[in-house]
Amino acid sequence: MLKSELTTNMTIPERLSELRALMSLKNIDAWIIPGTDPHQSEYLPERWNERAWISGFTGSFGQIVVTQNNAGLWTDSRYFLQAEKQLHHTGIKLYKLRVEGEATIDDFLKNELSNGAVLGINPKLFTVNAVKNFMSSLSEKGITLNTQEDLLSEIWTDRPPIPNAPSILLSTQYAGLSIKKKLAIIRKQFKEENWTLLVTALDEIAWLFNIRGRDIKYNPLTVSWAIVGNRSAILFVDKEKIDQDLRISLAENGVTTAGYDEIATYLSELPAGETVFVDPDKVNQDLFQSIPEYCTVQVLASPLALLKAKKNSTELDGIRNAMEKDGVAMVRFLMQLEKTIKNDEKISEYDIGILLKDLRSKQADFFGESFQTIAGYMANGAIVHYAPSEKSSATLEAGGIILVDSGGQYYDGTTDITRTIKLGKVSDEIKTDFTNVLKGVIALAKAIFPKGTCGIQLDILARNAMWQEKIDYGHGTGHGVGHFLNVHEGPQTIRKEGNMVPFEEGMLITIEPGIYKPDRHGIRIENMVTTVNAGESEFGSFLQFETLTLCPIDLDLIMLQLLTRDEIEWINAYHRNVYLKLSPYLDKEEAAWLKTKTRKVDD
Amino acid sequence: MLKSELTTNMTIPERLSELRALMSLKNIDAWIIPGTDPHQSEYLPERWNERAWISGFTGSFGQIVVTQNNAGLWTDSRYFLQAEKQLHHTGIKLYKLRVEGEATIDDFLKNELSNGAVLGINPKLFTVNAVKNFMSSLSEKGITLNTQEDLLSEIWTDRPPIPNAPSILLSTQYAGLSIKKKLAIIRKQFKEENWTLLVTALDEIAWLFNIRGRDIKYNPLTVSWAIVGNRSAILFVDKEKIDQDLRISLAENGVTTAGYDEIATYLSELPAGETVFVDPDKVNQDLFQSIPEYCTVQVLASPLALLKAKKNSTELDGIRNAMEKDGVAMVRFLMQLEKTIKNDEKISEYDIGILLKDLRSKQADFFGESFQTIAGYMANGAIVHYAPSEKSSATLEAGGIILVDSGGQYYDGTTDITRTIKLGKVSDEIKTDFTNVLKGVIALAKAIFPKGTCGIQLDILARNAMWQEKIDYGHGTGHGVGHFLNVHEGPQTIRKEGNMVPFEEGMLITIEPGIYKPDRHGIRIENMVTTVNAGESEFGSFLQFETLTLCPIDLDLIMLQLLTRDEIEWINAYHRNVYLKLSPYLDKEEAAWLKTKTRKVDD
Repeated sequence: MLKSELTTNMTIPERLSELRALMSLKNIDAWIIPGTDPHQSEYLPERWNERAWISGFTGSFGQIVVTQNNAGLWTDSRYFLQAEKQLHHTGIKLYKLRVEGEATIDDFLKNELSNGAVLGINPKLFTVNAVKNFMSSLSEKGITLNTQEDLLSEIWTDRPPIPNAPSILLSTQYAGLSIKKKLAIIRKQFKEENWTLLVTALDEIAWLFNIRGRDIKYNPLTVSWAIVGNRSAILFVDKEKIDQDLRISLAENGVTTAGYDEIATYLSELPAGETVFVDPDKVNQDLFQSIPEYCTVQVLASPLALLKAKKNSTELDGIRNAMEKDGVAMVRFLMQLEKTIKNDEKISEYDIGILLKDLRSKQADFFGESFQTIAGYMANGAIVHYAPSEKSSATLEAGGIILVDSGGQYYDGTTDITRTIKLGKVSDEIKTDFTNVLKGVIALAKAIFPKGTCGIQLDILARNAMWQEKIDYGHGTGHGVGHFLNVHEGPQTIRKEGNMVPFEEGMLITIEPGIYKPDRHGIRIENMVTTVNAGESEFGSFLQFETLTLCPIDLDLIMLQLLTRDEIEWINAYHRNVYLKLSPYLDKEEAAWLKTKTRKVDD
Repeated sequence: MLKSELTTNMTIPERLSELRALMSLKNIDAWIIPGTDPHQSEYLPERWNERAWISGFTGSFGQIVVTQNNAGLWTDSRYFLQAEKQLHHTGIKLYKLRVEGEATIDDFLKNELSNGAVLGINPKLFTVNAVKNFMSSLSEKGITLNTQEDLLSEIWTDRPPIPNAPSILLSTQYAGLSIKKKLAIIRKQFKEENWTLLVTALDEIAWLFNIRGRDIKYNPLTVSWAIVGNRSAILFVDKEKIDQDLRISLAENGVTTAGYDEIATYLSELPAGETVFVDPDKVNQDLFQSIPEYCTVQVLASPLALLKAKKNSTELDGIRNAMEKDGVAMVRFLMQLEKTIKNDEKISEYDIGILLKDLRSKQADFFGESFQTIAGYMANGAIVHYAPSEKSSATLEAGGIILVDSGGQYYDGTTDITRTIKLGKVSDEIKTDFTNVLKGVIALAKAIFPKGTCGIQLDILARNAMWQEKIDYGHGTGHGVGHFLNVHEGPQTIRKEGNMVPFEEGMLITIEPGIYKPDRHGIRIENMVTTVNAGESEFGSFLQFETLTLCPIDLDLIMLQLLTRDEIEWINAYHRNVYLKLSPYLDKEEAAWLKTKTRKVDD
């Protein structure tokens, strides 16, 4: 959730009109703006936030298509309400993804473009596979693809520069493995004589070279590229970001540095006989085209993604420690919020983000927030990725509930937690919904499953209770989390859609079912868990989740009679652990408060 | 589960040795025997049962590969124990599918065959896609594919003829839709000017033309091919199978007939400009090669599979009626079994199949069994598709449990039911296992899920309870069932593996979790259900299952303390319905017996 910090004075319709004039001049009939950067980042530097600049839509997911007469934004249910508000009067129509009857981008293009038309995209912003898919789906209708232009750079004259925050070295005390060891693990996976692995995802580069940065909001990354070969390892990054100490440390691990812009030249000068490994879902078309034709290109899923996802024991110890700190900050926040409401003092949704950041920043090794706090009071909680702004933000009342989704970046780990909190009187409907969401959290937290099980198989555990009430939510159940890296990472997920990556020990994932009733209320409970060994039997090896998040779940929102004995036992055991782990860091008053919030409940 | 009825006197090693001599003569280094027929049938006429003839293995699933020095059978966990027994001393090694560390057929071939080697297959027995996959996986190693030979026909001299049972017309009173209407529905799906749809799956042909037959054991089918075009509809079948009445009825619906062997010529004479639609997972390579090159071939998933899977209201009424008849037969069976054991009379596993067939055959519109009865006492129950033979079949004792999986073909529907029955004293382990299996049945039977949900998402509901005990089963949870057709049909399934066909109203499916402890006991409970509308909400349309099978579940095997209140309520409601539906057809003694077996239990 990036806030737009654009300074241009042009209105959205003026921007669209300039783009259309340019399209006309260049004989381009449709232009697609994907809303990502040359690294396929989810959160991106403002420099590349073309989607927000052209439309005013600030959600973190969506694509825009502009033709001479029409324009559309395709985004998912998390952003339906937000997009409708932000697109109002822009002339851009919202198309809802995964809703029956809605036109897809393909439908729209087939309808708008006639035989011989030209579709244009900026090749830096599209992956190899995305370009391939466009080609095959549009060639039927005789539509050609122009990948030579960068139209927005021509009209967005005050485009921000590439960020230039200094990089820092993450010591092995936090990272667990030295750069040298990581390089050795990767090199073992390749048997070719002369090979080059091109790494373009910023979090993979940060993991590999144990560097962190501040180029991107919320994600502790440095804008860069990387090359790993049999003997070489090169970090392509603006030189002023790397200080003397960092350069020495990289050199000691066999890593050389080059300028960020030198990657294309480097690729174009690769020797004949080189095998270049490319992840076609991550590498952009522009870089791909820089690889000489006499090299052998082999596609693969980046091996760094899986290596990074399986946390080592140092990283796991780190995240457990970060959870204690984050839990202390959350407990102080919950206590303070309760007091504020009780004392009838004013507090807005926006204030909650400020307060949480302030409380987290007092914890050791705090680096920043892991994403913009979502604090949604009642109906605002139903806007799935609602981000309250300073100017338009609801003031909390002593009734109803608030959904608060927030997280921190610490040197020892990244956190992501959602709690839905009772502020006063609530309806039975809210309590029933809360209890069904909680049943989903517990079902996954308790599950034991055979090795080889994927997220698509587990997803129903989070939904089954609410499905019995014909309630569902339109987002995934869980996403991977980095270690002091992106709050969203792959390759594992828990969702309805097919993703056949099985869980492995050490993977971090969130469990975050929700119920959203537009104009009424939104409820979500989110814990982070890690995958651990559950033991062997004559039927094979089994895994389970260990819940990492340490923060009370609001007992006053639970309809106890809807829970089974096992579910109540889980809650009591969870709360016992929360108190045990957090109370040593709390003062007397805080500990007493936590004691009541983690009290044992009976069935 | 076909019993081999082969008359050749050669031993298995003699057959293998003749095959190897022929391979040597024809310069073929490896020969694959897939165990299916030119129609990709699961149960096949003995004529095409090459797998059983060459190996002695009578399971319904597996492939055999023979080279000069080695031979292997690849089959799945249902058949591990059976295959080990049947392959003993044949020189054929069992390779376990989906078991870590076991060589796949690909591994085996890559190991056995050197550069320039020739792999041979009978093109009649392999689909278009299977051939394509062979080509792409073997071409790397310079292995070529010979698809011109039919080696087994040269050595299997007393190969049985194509079966010649007469076909019968299934009146619309049972089928619900006339042939004419079905043709109209199919024709609506094609917009091309001149098109031909090639239909090769025997159950699709039977469904389309409302014919049934006795060419294949258990599956009420006629060996045939079909062509549907804009104006034409042709049934290719041996003329003597179609009597005067059937021919007239087909003609009245616009269907002409031709000889079974005329299909290849018909295809080869298709006019230029014709678009031929082919399901590459169903059509064999031999027929595919008959299509002239000047025709346009378009691949698709056969539209008949989905049409057939969604039962119309007449078919659904029929299956509900068939379930009452089948339930009455099952109740009489269970009662008689109980008496036999109580009176200390002898009864073998094999006798159970005879008894069940006899009881079913007394019901109206009975046509035959839908598969060979599986009756496995204790350890035999752990052999998943165990089929007791007359000669080697265990005698039941007044202790332990027996697993009985059986089904009937009636004009109004096909049934498939498994019950595990207590014969006397059982261990707590058996009761716990039975209860966990039952929990799986109930979880699926009660589930409500959004439209668009697939079997892979639901599968865990059947396994979750036993997974918590680190127990799992190696087969799918549910398969589609035909209407007076194959007991196994697609496209929907409930299993761990990816199958992205969503459930639709009117689909029939089994729910059949199990627990198998080798050398100890096997437990399975299987009910058939149909998919019904569960209503709408602000979150969309929801579906659920309606349980169709009517037969008591053994209350004396349940550990009630392991069940939730909701689960006990489900059992009581299910048993109330079983008694309500079946008692009108039972005599006083039977009804009284059923009353106690469906008694209300308390938590």
